[in-house]
Amino acid sequence: MDPKKFQTPYAVIFTSKLKTKSKAYEEMASKMFSLAQEQKGFLGIESAREDIGITVSYWKDLESIKTWKENAAHQIAQELGRNKWYAAYKVRIAKVERQYDF
Amino acid sequence: MDPKKFQTPYAVIFTSKLKTKSKAYEEMASKMFSLAQEQKGFLGIESAREDIGITVSYWKDLESIKTWKENAAHQIAQELGRNKWYAAYKVRIAKVERQYDF
Repeated sequence: MDPKKFQTPYAVIFTSKLKTKSKAYEEMASKMFSLAQEQKGFLGIESAREDIGITVSYWKDLESIKTWKENAAHQIAQELGRNKWYAAYKVRIAKVERQYDF
Repeated sequence: MDPKKFQTPYAVIFTSKLKTKSKAYEEMASKMFSLAQEQKGFLGIESAREDIGITVSYWKDLESIKTWKENAAHQIAQELGRNKWYAAYKVRIAKVERQYDF
């Protein structure tokens, strides 16, 4: 719950359904979770998985989101995700208009 | 993964940290999850909890989000949440600009 996130104008909402949970998937997810945080324009990330997984990452602008999507290591992860791990996923890019906390 | 969600322009991203998990909380969360789905302008909801909980609900417009926030039963749940269950939470209201799926 990082105060930085309060300034973030863009959220990427990634919801996914796994075929099965695997160690290889967990490792890759963890690697991408870390790698995202090193990217330009990155502002925050939150993740939880039960029946479905929801990861919301926060970015300064659309350009940063695009650059992260096209990152070489991330491209490999996305490809593996589609070919091996995910039964389905959705990505929504949304502009944060209001936020409040407790 | 309901195709309706693809038309939704607004996402409410609710992230929360519980003090402790309780049966009373689980019951209320489940009640609110169902009640949200009966509201005007409701388009979808997705939820997962591990260390933190993330619930993303999708709405037709800001008016629907406001009406749901002010719903009497929901107000009681919010009050209980602040007084008893949540260590912290954040609400972000975001306009979905792009979406794609697999």
